[in-house]
Amino acid sequence: MKKKNPLLAPELRELLKKGNTKAIRTFCETGHPAHVAELISALSASEAWQILQSVDYPLRAEIFSHMDEDLQIEVVASLPRMDVAHLLADMAPDDRADLFKKLPEDIGEAVLPALAQAEREDIRRLAAYEEGTAGSVMTSDYVTLSPHLTAAQAIDQLRQVAPDKETIYYAYVVDDQRRLQGFVSLKDLILARRDAKIGDIMHPDVIFARVNDDQEDAARKIQKYDLIALPVINGNDALVGIITHDDALDVITQEQTEDMEKLMAISGSHESGIYLKTPAWKHFLNRAPWVVILAALGMVSGLIVQNFEGLLMQFAILATFMPMLADTGGNTGSQSATLVIRALALREVSPRDILRILFKEFNVSMLLGLLLGVIAFARVLTMGKGSAIPGNCSLETIGIAIAIALGIQVVTATLIGAILPMIAVVMKKDPAVVASPALTTVVDITGLMIYFGTAKLVLGI
Amino acid sequence: MKKKNPLLAPELRELLKKGNTKAIRTFCETGHPAHVAELISALSASEAWQILQSVDYPLRAEIFSHMDEDLQIEVVASLPRMDVAHLLADMAPDDRADLFKKLPEDIGEAVLPALAQAEREDIRRLAAYEEGTAGSVMTSDYVTLSPHLTAAQAIDQLRQVAPDKETIYYAYVVDDQRRLQGFVSLKDLILARRDAKIGDIMHPDVIFARVNDDQEDAARKIQKYDLIALPVINGNDALVGIITHDDALDVITQEQTEDMEKLMAISGSHESGIYLKTPAWKHFLNRAPWVVILAALGMVSGLIVQNFEGLLMQFAILATFMPMLADTGGNTGSQSATLVIRALALREVSPRDILRILFKEFNVSMLLGLLLGVIAFARVLTMGKGSAIPGNCSLETIGIAIAIALGIQVVTATLIGAILPMIAVVMKKDPAVVASPALTTVVDITGLMIYFGTAKLVLGI
Repeated sequence: MKKKNPLLAPELRELLKKGNTKAIRTFCETGHPAHVAELISALSASEAWQILQSVDYPLRAEIFSHMDEDLQIEVVASLPRMDVAHLLADMAPDDRADLFKKLPEDIGEAVLPALAQAEREDIRRLAAYEEGTAGSVMTSDYVTLSPHLTAAQAIDQLRQVAPDKETIYYAYVVDDQRRLQGFVSLKDLILARRDAKIGDIMHPDVIFARVNDDQEDAARKIQKYDLIALPVINGNDALVGIITHDDALDVITQEQTEDMEKLMAISGSHESGIYLKTPAWKHFLNRAPWVVILAALGMVSGLIVQNFEGLLMQFAILATFMPMLADTGGNTGSQSATLVIRALALREVSPRDILRILFKEFNVSMLLGLLLGVIAFARVLTMGKGSAIPGNCSLETIGIAIAIALGIQVVTATLIGAILPMIAVVMKKDPAVVASPALTTVVDITGLMIYFGTAKLVLGI
Repeated sequence: MKKKNPLLAPELRELLKKGNTKAIRTFCETGHPAHVAELISALSASEAWQILQSVDYPLRAEIFSHMDEDLQIEVVASLPRMDVAHLLADMAPDDRADLFKKLPEDIGEAVLPALAQAEREDIRRLAAYEEGTAGSVMTSDYVTLSPHLTAAQAIDQLRQVAPDKETIYYAYVVDDQRRLQGFVSLKDLILARRDAKIGDIMHPDVIFARVNDDQEDAARKIQKYDLIALPVINGNDALVGIITHDDALDVITQEQTEDMEKLMAISGSHESGIYLKTPAWKHFLNRAPWVVILAALGMVSGLIVQNFEGLLMQFAILATFMPMLADTGGNTGSQSATLVIRALALREVSPRDILRILFKEFNVSMLLGLLLGVIAFARVLTMGKGSAIPGNCSLETIGIAIAIALGIQVVTATLIGAILPMIAVVMKKDPAVVASPALTTVVDITGLMIYFGTAKLVLGI
C-alpha cells in the first residue's frame, strides 16, 4: 500500500516547464487515471495535452476520459484531427459517444472521417439515442458467447477479448440473430466443469432494459438486483449494449441533483453542472425564470391581503398571525411533497397508490393541524392581552378562528403537496417540477383565502 | 430470454393454501432472489417463512436477505433459535450484521449462542461499527492472496473460495499481519502468464477507506474510481472488510433521501423509511418538531408586521407587495442553499471555497435582484394607480423604495442561503439541516426588516 502520490498541480506545471517528461510519465503511470485526470483538470488545455502526450495509448485515452468534459472539448478543439481520431479510437464507446455529442458540430464532422468505419458507426449509433434513455448511457464493449461453447473455450475467448472490454465478468449468450438467451458470469465459468456447455450453465432469466427505457429505471434495476452490468436490447430483442455498475452510480447521482434542483425551482441542464465552473450568468439564467414567475404569483397573495385590508384594520391581531400561517402551510406542504416525490423516484409508490397516500397524509396532517391549532390558540390568548378588539368579539373567539384556519391550512397544504407530484407523473412530467417554491407560493394563496374566510365566518363579519 | 415469471402475491398465497410446495419451489428457484423477495414481502411473516422453507440453503438465506427489514425481523422473532441460526449462517456477513443490529436485544442474544464461534464473532465485530461509517456497510467476505503465489495458484484458490465470497473479481494482497499490499483483479489473473508472481502483477496503489470514514465518502470513492469493491482498513492498516459496488449504490440512495428530507425539515431515521409502510404517527413525529419550531419563529415575522402597522395603514400598497417580497427571499435563498448543499455533498466544493462561492452568489443575486427590482417598479406604477398615497409622496418614490428593498432582500437571502450550509459543515453538522423551510422563515424575518427599513428611509418617515 504505497502512499498516495503527493504531486500537486503547481508541481506538475513546474515539471512541464522543466521539460521533465520522464517524471511526468512516471506520475501518470503510477496514479489512478481518475486521480491523474483530476490534477490535470486544474491546468490549461495545452498543458493537459502536453502531459497526456507523455504517456502511450490506451492509458492516454483513459486519463483523458476522466477529465472534465469542458477541458476535454477544449483539448479536442485544439488538436489536429488525426490526434483526435487516435484518442477517440482508444476511448470506451460510451465515453467517446458522450464526448462526440458535446463537440461543436464542425469539429465532430471533421474528425469522423479520420476514424475507422466500425468506430465511426459505433459513435453515430450510440450518439443517436435520446438523452435520458438507457441507450444513451450504455456501452457497446461487452462480451457475447455462443451457447455451444464449453466453459474452457469461453474462458479462452474472454481472455482474448479482455483487454478491449469494459467488463469480462458478465458475458451474454446470444443466438445467431443476437437475441439475448442468457448470461454467465466469469465466476460461473470458473466454477463449472471445463467441458460444461455454456447453454447448460447459463442463467436464462436475464434482467435487462430496453434502449428507450428511462436511464434511472435501468440504474435502479442494477441497484435492486446487485448487478455488475445490465444488458440493453432493442426493439427486435437483439442485444445492443450494456450499462455497467459505475454508470448506474453516475446516473443516480445525476438524477438526484436534478431532483433537488427542480425541487428548488432551478431549471436548466444539469449534466456537467459543476457548481464553481458554471459561470454566474448561466446560474442566473437557470434560476431567474421560476423566481420571476413565482414573484408574479406572489402578487396574488398581496392582492388578497389588500382585499381584506378592512378586516385587518379591525383585527390587528390577524395580521400578526398571517406570516406564521403562510409559512406553516408552505412547510407542511413541502414536507409531504418531498416524501411523495422521493417515494415516486425510488419506485416505492406509483400514482395508483393515490388513495392510500392521501389517506396517510390526511391522518398525518390532522395530527399536525391539531397540534399547531392548540399551540396557536394558546399563543393568541397570551399575546392578545393588549390588542385592541372590537367590543362584540372575545379574544377566545379570535383564538378559535385562528386555530381552525391554521388547522385547515395544514391539512389542505399537506394534501396539495401530496397530490401535485402524482398529477405531474400522470401527465408524464417529472414530479420534482412541483417545486417547493412553487408549492409554497400556491399554498400561500389558498392559505390566505382560508384564513380570511374562516375569520369572517367565525367572527361573524 | 425467458419471460419474467408472471406469478403474483395472491397466486402465491393460493399455492400455499393448496400446499403446492413443488410449484412454489420452482418459482423461487427460477426467479431472481430480489424479485422473489419482493413478492414475498406482500405476505405475512408466517406465509413468508412457509415459502422460504420450500427451498434449500443458501438460496433460502439469499431470498430472505432481499426481503423488507421489518418482515425479516417479524420472521426471525417467530422462529425457533436454531432456524434463525441456520438462516444467519448462510447470509452475507454485512446483511446479517445489519439484521442483528435491528433485532430486539433479547432475540439477538438468544440466537448468538446457537451460531458457530467464527460467525458469532464476525457478527459482533461488524455490528460494532457506528452507523454511517465505512465499517458499518462493509462485508467480511473477501478474498486475500499471498504475494508469493503464482497467477495459476491464485486462480485455483479463487475457484475454491468462490461459492462463499461476495466477489471474487477483486482479490487483495496482504502481508502476514494482514496489512494491505495491493490488489489484483480476476481479469489481471486471467491475462497474466500462469507462473507470474502475484507480488509482481498486483497494483500496489490501492484506493481504500478506513473503518471510521464516512460511508458516503467511501461510496463516492467507488464511484470516482469505477471500482467493483473498495477495501477497508483499520487503525493498524490491516484489511478488515470490503464495500461492494451494490452497497455503494444503496449508501448513495440513502444519503440522498436523508438530504432531501432534511432540506424539507423532516427529522428522524431514514434507513428503512419506506413511505407507505411507515405508520402515520411516525410520520407525524418526524415532521412535527421542525414545523412547530418554525411556526414559533414565524411569529417573529408577525410581530414585525404588527410593529409597522402604522406605516402599512398609511401606505396600503406596501402591504400588497409584502407577501411577494417574503416569497422571493425564500425562493432565492433556497436556490442558493440547494446548490451549495449539493456541491458540498458531491465534494465539488469545501468550506475553504467560501469566498469564491460568496463572490459567485453575489454576482448571481445582483443580476436576479436587478431584474426583480425593475419588474417590481413597473408593477407598482401600473397597480398603484388607484391607491391612496399621502400627499408628500409620489408613486415613483414608493416604486423605488419597493424595488430597492426587493433587490436587497434577494441579495441578502441568496448570501444567507449560501453561507449557512458552509457554517453547518464547519460546525460538523450536515449542511442539509439548513433546511429550506428554516431558511424561508429566517429570510422572512430579515426581509421584513429590510422592507420596512428601506421604506422608512426612502419615503423619509
